[in-house]
Amino acid sequence: MDASNTDKKVDTSSINVTTGPIQGSIKHYVETASGLRVAMRAIPLEPSSGEPPVIVYDPSGPYTDASVKIDIQCGLSKLRAEWIIARGDVEAYDGRAIKPEDNGKRASVPECPAVNHRPLRAKAGQTVSQLAYAKRGIVTPEMEYVAVRENEGRKAALDKKRDGEDFGASVPDFVTPEFVRDEIARGRAVLPANINHPESEPMILGRNFLTKINANIGNSAVTSSVAEEVDKMVWSTRWGADTVMDLSTGNDIHNIREWIIRNSPVPIGTVPIYQALEKANGVAEDLTWEMFKDTLIEQAEQGVDYWTIHAGVRLAHIPLTANRTTGIVSRGGSIMAKWCLTYHKESFLYEHFADICDICAQYDVGLSLGDGLRPGSIADANDAAQFAELDTLGELQKIAFAKDVQVFIEGPGHVPMHKIKENMDRQLQVCGEAPFYTLGPLTTDIAPGYDHITSAIGAAMIGWYGCAMLCYVTPKEHLGLPNRDDVKVGVVTYKLAAHAADLAKGHPGAQIRDDAVSRARFEFRWKDQFHLSLDPDTAMQYHDETLPAEGAKSSHFCSMCGPKFCSMKISHEVKAVAEQGMHEMSEKFREKGGEIYLHDGQKTEAAE
Amino acid sequence: MDASNTDKKVDTSSINVTTGPIQGSIKHYVETASGLRVAMRAIPLEPSSGEPPVIVYDPSGPYTDASVKIDIQCGLSKLRAEWIIARGDVEAYDGRAIKPEDNGKRASVPECPAVNHRPLRAKAGQTVSQLAYAKRGIVTPEMEYVAVRENEGRKAALDKKRDGEDFGASVPDFVTPEFVRDEIARGRAVLPANINHPESEPMILGRNFLTKINANIGNSAVTSSVAEEVDKMVWSTRWGADTVMDLSTGNDIHNIREWIIRNSPVPIGTVPIYQALEKANGVAEDLTWEMFKDTLIEQAEQGVDYWTIHAGVRLAHIPLTANRTTGIVSRGGSIMAKWCLTYHKESFLYEHFADICDICAQYDVGLSLGDGLRPGSIADANDAAQFAELDTLGELQKIAFAKDVQVFIEGPGHVPMHKIKENMDRQLQVCGEAPFYTLGPLTTDIAPGYDHITSAIGAAMIGWYGCAMLCYVTPKEHLGLPNRDDVKVGVVTYKLAAHAADLAKGHPGAQIRDDAVSRARFEFRWKDQFHLSLDPDTAMQYHDETLPAEGAKSSHFCSMCGPKFCSMKISHEVKAVAEQGMHEMSEKFREKGGEIYLHDGQKTEAAE
Repeated sequence: MDASNTDKKVDTSSINVTTGPIQGSIKHYVETASGLRVAMRAIPLEPSSGEPPVIVYDPSGPYTDASVKIDIQCGLSKLRAEWIIARGDVEAYDGRAIKPEDNGKRASVPECPAVNHRPLRAKAGQTVSQLAYAKRGIVTPEMEYVAVRENEGRKAALDKKRDGEDFGASVPDFVTPEFVRDEIARGRAVLPANINHPESEPMILGRNFLTKINANIGNSAVTSSVAEEVDKMVWSTRWGADTVMDLSTGNDIHNIREWIIRNSPVPIGTVPIYQALEKANGVAEDLTWEMFKDTLIEQAEQGVDYWTIHAGVRLAHIPLTANRTTGIVSRGGSIMAKWCLTYHKESFLYEHFADICDICAQYDVGLSLGDGLRPGSIADANDAAQFAELDTLGELQKIAFAKDVQVFIEGPGHVPMHKIKENMDRQLQVCGEAPFYTLGPLTTDIAPGYDHITSAIGAAMIGWYGCAMLCYVTPKEHLGLPNRDDVKVGVVTYKLAAHAADLAKGHPGAQIRDDAVSRARFEFRWKDQFHLSLDPDTAMQYHDETLPAEGAKSSHFCSMCGPKFCSMKISHEVKAVAEQGMHEMSEKFREKGGEIYLHDGQKTEAAE
Repeated sequence: MDASNTDKKVDTSSINVTTGPIQGSIKHYVETASGLRVAMRAIPLEPSSGEPPVIVYDPSGPYTDASVKIDIQCGLSKLRAEWIIARGDVEAYDGRAIKPEDNGKRASVPECPAVNHRPLRAKAGQTVSQLAYAKRGIVTPEMEYVAVRENEGRKAALDKKRDGEDFGASVPDFVTPEFVRDEIARGRAVLPANINHPESEPMILGRNFLTKINANIGNSAVTSSVAEEVDKMVWSTRWGADTVMDLSTGNDIHNIREWIIRNSPVPIGTVPIYQALEKANGVAEDLTWEMFKDTLIEQAEQGVDYWTIHAGVRLAHIPLTANRTTGIVSRGGSIMAKWCLTYHKESFLYEHFADICDICAQYDVGLSLGDGLRPGSIADANDAAQFAELDTLGELQKIAFAKDVQVFIEGPGHVPMHKIKENMDRQLQVCGEAPFYTLGPLTTDIAPGYDHITSAIGAAMIGWYGCAMLCYVTPKEHLGLPNRDDVKVGVVTYKLAAHAADLAKGHPGAQIRDDAVSRARFEFRWKDQFHLSLDPDTAMQYHDETLPAEGAKSSHFCSMCGPKFCSMKISHEVKAVAEQGMHEMSEKFREKGGEIYLHDGQKTEAAE
């Protein structure tokens, strides 16, 4: 081989995804007696801290494990394959043949070599959903995995006083597999886990579990490599996305989805009406139930873990939107509204809802009941159209639950702060406590370009009130397509909102990471502060813009104020003096006749 | 003159500040019968909208008025000078002579030519504060100005149903000068207006007025031009800062402050202990009351509008901080704590508080009672030290109020969501409803680099609960010094948080701008959407990254989804059909025996 070989173009599709640990972290696995290996992330601290590594929740999969070789042509290893087979209730079969229209007008993306043309489905008469097992009292390995995963920090917090306001939730001190099973069995939690996506690491959505976030991705008009498409999923989960929705439209969507699912450690959601509409050449009126059903089978066989279905957009609700400021802003909702109006007929999604559930039950596809009539502006928040649809979603939730289909409910949208709680309260009331999954909500309409922030305010609040999953919003919302940086900003913003919610709800152990950051800050352990943060790269970069020298990372003052004005530095001196004995000094001065401390009333309060 | 002249270096200090209207806006003045000319900003909309311009609150001063020639060597015109003189209660006198130490070790910045060495003070026996006038029943021009300024949109909203939850505030339908006077007289509002800062445009802080924001600025270690320093203030107010705090330390601070005040249309606040510490060569123990008092006179004569004074950090409170996770994080607080501990004596700020008030009353300097013991971490939120200090601030508020000094109260800091309301409730309870002015609060510690967002969540919430002013946090918080972009991001983030608070509190008229943005969005008036947003430049830039062509700004679909998937586009079609007569169509189908609409119960709800 000569050196010039390295210049030759090679297929880079297998190497172009983001791999390697997050700065300052190492992959960490908790092994259970039953043989599970639950993925987490460990953040070792400087020896001077005298503290153990901080263990954090980690949805990023094997991509951040330096010891795993990633090859997206092979897909991830099939963590759940044996568990699924061992239950003895599934059968492999010749899957639906791929049709040209599955990939739109042109398929320029090759089929993923890891594809399996013999998908699994439930044996006749069986229901293979986690809900079906839970109702029958079975604790699956998926449930056990989730229990371990949700428990980070809870052991250390067991002897601490619980803090927080949970608005009637039932957050446990410690998550047991039985608790997970019980929450799923009650319909209060969903564990999205299509039997044809055995690569996924089990995770759970529910009011009594950690608040989760979703990132949306979609194919580019010009796809230069499948690796780029796969990397959108890898990149989102790297920064903390717990699930990813593939909202692709147009060409190549079947093949791109295959590449994504085979390589995704997190559940993948879709909006099947988008692909169905492609098959109808973009004409809403040409959509049929048969076309839609065929799309569901196609996606269920690929391993999609949950579907947004806008079955709550009923014909009768549509007139309620006529006087809105922003009409119908959901794509799926508007497509269905148009279909209903054209024929002046009830939605085929509503009418065939039981059939949809039957498909879900065969593969364990979760249903995310879409809020096609969500408000798209402050003016339309909490209006009749929105709540009429929510009531319908409550009806549908009961149908799905009865059919052992895992189901959760989508929520708005644009809602001013004082109207957010009503959304949560009504959802809990009419949807049987099924998990709520909201987009934001945005708390004002006046800041396009900053809607990750207008919505993070609403997201943190509704997460606190009980929302199970927050769908991220990027800075490009309402304006354009997010690039790689926008996706990262969106994910990190939603991680901080979800964490703020967990703190306020009082999740035991949630504050451990905050405390570790704050101690690192107070002790001038700059690198620990960076490594413990949600985005170590940005934190370090910002620090270095002001004080780039390596020495500044161990300096005992803040980069903002310099040594003379550093409150932390002075505070250490204060603490040292205080520890030397305030009492002793007080006595000394008291001898001189000085009355130094406050009167008794204030002393008492201080001592509390 | 030959062409080469233009290459010669000229003093650019007069031209290097940011001027010109915000994209899509024009300066707008509301003239009153009494001859006031109240500055606002008008955003004209596309003719197709059929809507009048949207008028918005505007603290940016003459810099955004294309018809005003800006020369920072001359300072702004003295809007309030005649009003102040006309009251007949002030006298000019030979001000305190400037000492070398006023500018630290070196004064490289020239004196501002607009300086006035004959400042004003109250005549003997007089108190010249807006509070003193208000208590005596006098409505000043400042109060009248504020009333007009706060009223944008209120006329249009008068016939609309009030919406919002104000937690016991008394937000009026319409702001009258008498209402302003009454709120000031009760101590529930503050109108910062040093008689030596006649250039300022009157504004007000209070729970019953629009939520305000503050931006902090400070001198650079290497000051290349005074224009750069002045521009930090101009830049902050351009994007919406209602007041600016000059937190400069080190060299040149007296002269830089003079340049800033002479050119500032908004109230300027400082933390005088910073300058006093410079005079004590950075040694906290060497601080004396005389040194501090001298600094107050110096700054009062220059025209500083309000001071943060950490008089609540009492000796007895300090031991309460010893076991904190992050000790004392306020610079002023830690300086005073060190002083108290060194001598084991009560704080000279606390002991001389009445003397401080006497100085304030002579110039109408407002007091912002600093929370030197605010929590610097989630772990320390709402602890004994914080609330002991708050009780002391309540004590001091009563002393200041009795002396006719306008006073407001600073608040935290780092507070998880479930503990924010207690801060507001306690502050209202112990501080006589004096305005609250908080830094965030940050709702988690784990996101350095994103603390403008962790804090915007808390800021929006506490603004809703009743906080009068929100001190901004930039992305560089805890990490480094904010640059120009960081300042803009911080200001815009806080504007959106303050606006979200105003919406939730139900300020009449607040929603007008949201509605205008949303109608523009629904009608594909892209330019209107940009112009109405808090940051038109960023909104347009984000749009253009996806669809740069000029034609795309008038296209009737969203840049994200393209025409086929544009919900707004489909929604318009739905609306058109609905308006054609859902009823008629319904009848037609009903004749065929179809039951299309929902049962009666839901119909009723829809009709509400």
